[in-house]
Amino acid sequence: MKIRNTPEDYINLNPLQAGGRTVAETRLAVNSYADGYAGYDQYSGPFFQIPKKETEQLIDKLKIFLGADGIFFTHGVREAKYLLMQSILENNDSIIVDGNAHFSTVLAAEKLGVKVFQTKNSGFPDYKINPKNYETLIESLKKKNQKPRLLVLTQVDGTYGNLVDAAKVALIAKKHDIPLLLNSAYLSGRTKVDIGEIGADFIVISGHKSFGVPGHIGALGVSEKWIDKIKSPDKDAKPWDLPARYLAITGLLASMDTIEKRVGNWDEEVKKANWFVEKMESLGDIKLLGEKPKQHDLILFDTPILERISANKRKKGYYLAEKLKEFGIIGLRPGQTKELRISTYGLTRSQLDYVYQTFAKLIKEENHGI
Amino acid sequence: MKIRNTPEDYINLNPLQAGGRTVAETRLAVNSYADGYAGYDQYSGPFFQIPKKETEQLIDKLKIFLGADGIFFTHGVREAKYLLMQSILENNDSIIVDGNAHFSTVLAAEKLGVKVFQTKNSGFPDYKINPKNYETLIESLKKKNQKPRLLVLTQVDGTYGNLVDAAKVALIAKKHDIPLLLNSAYLSGRTKVDIGEIGADFIVISGHKSFGVPGHIGALGVSEKWIDKIKSPDKDAKPWDLPARYLAITGLLASMDTIEKRVGNWDEEVKKANWFVEKMESLGDIKLLGEKPKQHDLILFDTPILERISANKRKKGYYLAEKLKEFGIIGLRPGQTKELRISTYGLTRSQLDYVYQTFAKLIKEENHGI
Repeated sequence: MKIRNTPEDYINLNPLQAGGRTVAETRLAVNSYADGYAGYDQYSGPFFQIPKKETEQLIDKLKIFLGADGIFFTHGVREAKYLLMQSILENNDSIIVDGNAHFSTVLAAEKLGVKVFQTKNSGFPDYKINPKNYETLIESLKKKNQKPRLLVLTQVDGTYGNLVDAAKVALIAKKHDIPLLLNSAYLSGRTKVDIGEIGADFIVISGHKSFGVPGHIGALGVSEKWIDKIKSPDKDAKPWDLPARYLAITGLLASMDTIEKRVGNWDEEVKKANWFVEKMESLGDIKLLGEKPKQHDLILFDTPILERISANKRKKGYYLAEKLKEFGIIGLRPGQTKELRISTYGLTRSQLDYVYQTFAKLIKEENHGI
Repeated sequence: MKIRNTPEDYINLNPLQAGGRTVAETRLAVNSYADGYAGYDQYSGPFFQIPKKETEQLIDKLKIFLGADGIFFTHGVREAKYLLMQSILENNDSIIVDGNAHFSTVLAAEKLGVKVFQTKNSGFPDYKINPKNYETLIESLKKKNQKPRLLVLTQVDGTYGNLVDAAKVALIAKKHDIPLLLNSAYLSGRTKVDIGEIGADFIVISGHKSFGVPGHIGALGVSEKWIDKIKSPDKDAKPWDLPARYLAITGLLASMDTIEKRVGNWDEEVKKANWFVEKMESLGDIKLLGEKPKQHDLILFDTPILERISANKRKKGYYLAEKLKEFGIIGLRPGQTKELRISTYGLTRSQLDYVYQTFAKLIKEENHGI
């Protein structure tokens, strides 16, 4: 079959893949366990048991990294949210979710017959989530005798890459005695998020989105008092489900050794994102959507100039992604020109300068009618 | 974390790992997709959809390889058996299973409240399954008005490595109009098993046991008339489950390119197994259990001589595995000396001769009281 050569041959701007790039150490570790049933070497009991050694090491590392007392593995964030909700919520319960939440948060709740109330964001152009809106919504639900059973905060949303101050939401949660879940899919692993320090009860993280892990793995981290409440599939479904995750567990454990280093670069990552935004906006008719200055690497640009350029081309919307690929730049959604959704994470300043120069060239050529 | 160096540094006799060793092409392909969300490149719709291109290619290849009309992926054979049983069986139904079936077959049925009847095997020393016993058991159940709804045949069992003639069981199944499932975990992928030619209705296969695939993946293959009966999790659980399998799907697809070649060596694999059995039995007080001549590479020896040797050592049962490791031979269950359960699959004759010479040396030293 075809070998994927993306990491070696292209600058990849795809916002979903930025935090999931694997480092050499992780690839080596995973490769060494690639043989079918290689995990069997590590089993300490009947072969369907979770391989103890690696898993326990990983759990210990994650507890410290997340400030959590209990760790439950899933295939990803959406499953981790669902795992939590099915453990602590009941049909007809109400929850509050931020206005920039991913649809899968709402989906998980609705699957359980839970009513979802969303806070508003601030709208064009920065679409910010104001922690105070949680308070307003709680009060209004309480008046209707629908006190919410859970607050969910998307720490960084996947559209604008806005960062919300989780500690402020945690204070509100504490005041009203409602547990708080942080959806940290795009934050934890890029930087350190400690639910103990923040005062949140739960966190969900994504191995393949922000920890550079192959195979798909997520986790739910919970504080002490909630551990026994979680209806973990690890308890019920051992023989059927667990071996499937071995490669991903190996990958996440290998990755953790490098994650602790990489979170030290987070300030530079954010500076680099703002530096790139400034350069791109200087091209004119390209405008950042979402908060400014940015506090994260996920970037959404409003790009009418690119839409106009593409409209004149034979391939219309598909012109842009194809043209950029000729320049070795990939990760744009084909057909999308009105907005540009990218990530600068892990790319060097000289790579990003090259991206900027390439856009400058395309726009300049167009203005000269070439 | 620690890098597993088994494939490079040791002769591995572990019977569970023999058919799952990955080839270079598979490792390269999987490695190229190791980045988190790399599968995203291949999605043709919303990101939670199954990645079309690779999956469709893989399904087409498997249909031909298995002679099946429908393919459903799972995490392994036990899940594939469960998927089938929950689709076509009901509480209180009866099924017939061979006397050498893995406990997970029985477990899957019992989880659904299905009654399991097992055929006898022929007992010491060859423990063979006689297809005729299915007929006897069907007749006796029919008399009690408990006509079985499914026959399950473990084509090659994991203990003795006995091969049963599936075509003979298929004739009995046809005669009584009962569908037949082949558990081919240890056969398909080592050699070609075609349910159309055999006349079976279903087959379950294991990527990590017999197709050299990293990540854990199994599949259920079904004949035309059953396709719509399968309550596939692929239909119900898309957003939650599918992305988790991408690395394994990539691995199995990469592997299929080499599987078609390797099944051509099957006759030599079986000859080699018999050659090795003969050498080991020549050491005296080592005796093959299971059918003779062998038709498969999974081998169980009765080894009282090794038990006696170990009994005299300080480490008792653990002596043998540790001693062999010094000679670069691994894969024995630590502590186990009364019986030796190994596989010769994929090892060269000169490697196996070295294994034989090593056992000969240990036994000779013992006899001389060294």
